[in-house]
Amino acid sequence: MGKLLKVLFHVNEVEKWDTALGNITNLIKDVGQGGAEIKVVANGPSVAAFSDSSRLQAMSALADEGAVFLACRNSLKKMCSGVDVCLTEEALPPFIKVVPAGITEIVRSQSEGFAYVKP
Amino acid sequence: MGKLLKVLFHVNEVEKWDTALGNITNLIKDVGQGGAEIKVVANGPSVAAFSDSSRLQAMSALADEGAVFLACRNSLKKMCSGVDVCLTEEALPPFIKVVPAGITEIVRSQSEGFAYVKP
Amino acid sequence: MGKLLKVLFHVNEVEKWDTALGNITNLIKDVGQGGAEIKVVANGPSVAAFSDSSRLQAMSALADEGAVFLACRNSLKKMCSGVDVCLTEEALPPFIKVVPAGITEIVRSQSEGFAYVKP
Repeated sequence: MGKLLKVLFHVNEVEKWDTALGNITNLIKDVGQGGAEIKVVANGPSVAAFSDSSRLQAMSALADEGAVFLACRNSLKKMCSGVDVCLTEEALPPFIKVVPAGITEIVRSQSEGFAYVKP
Repeated sequence: MGKLLKVLFHVNEVEKWDTALGNITNLIKDVGQGGAEIKVVANGPSVAAFSDSSRLQAMSALADEGAVFLACRNSLKKMCSGVDVCLTEEALPPFIKVVPAGITEIVRSQSEGFAYVKP
Repeated sequence: MGKLLKVLFHVNEVEKWDTALGNITNLIKDVGQGGAEIKVVANGPSVAAFSDSSRLQAMSALADEGAVFLACRNSLKKMCSGVDVCLTEEALPPFIKVVPAGITEIVRSQSEGFAYVKP
């Protein structure tokens, strides 16, 4: 069956979550759970979706199938400096991990052989 | 002249086709026909463009120059579950091939050395 | 600290410059100046931003920290065939270099180990 696929999904706009989660669902359905190592890096305004319970539920289901969700600390802080939503790291569900800079994760992962997908 | 370039264009929105086709045209003009192995993977709502005759004509011309057009079966099915356009696989012109899951093609191609471009 | 990171940012819409410049700022802050080799390729309508003095100032500051800005000649020419803005290559600030086809630069760079980011 060839080598394990590795892929990073880059989500930086709130409106792109549905497409991203749909892509991941289709990928797992196609290659089977464990058939691909999947990371999702959220930076920019997309991190606001981590306060949306219906989206969190969909993410959590994919995390249960092995997808790793990573939130950019810079973006969480920037959101909290605005007027709308503020999510502290402590308020995030346990399946979402925080990385210091999402952009570094995106670049470093590719240097480690992850494919890049921008939904 | 170095190794053959390999590139996959990911088109997932109808509005991005013009940019994508322009990019591919410029690439072939720059590196010469045969100077790059070119795949175009259409998933999501972008597959609706396969019912647009003027766009199909532009794609067909690029296919004649070696570009390979791949449509996501999941996306074709999803489109047919909606109210607007429905394209059966049989209705697609012969130069468009169907893959079971566009997202897998996108990930696997990168693991095989294809560059990724999101127009 | 591992190998030097190499990354290409692809900017093809004017509205994406702020995100792109923010990403690059965060990346340099995170990995340190010299911690990553950074290219920015502008093609399509995004090249119009090269006539915007406040954006040029932000780009110039990042160029001082090592980021390389590349403009697509095809896109500059296309802009000049339109009615709005026309920027000749000579009018560009010295820190912006022109490449014959941005799309080729994007593909070739990935074949040379650059990660790809689409802000």
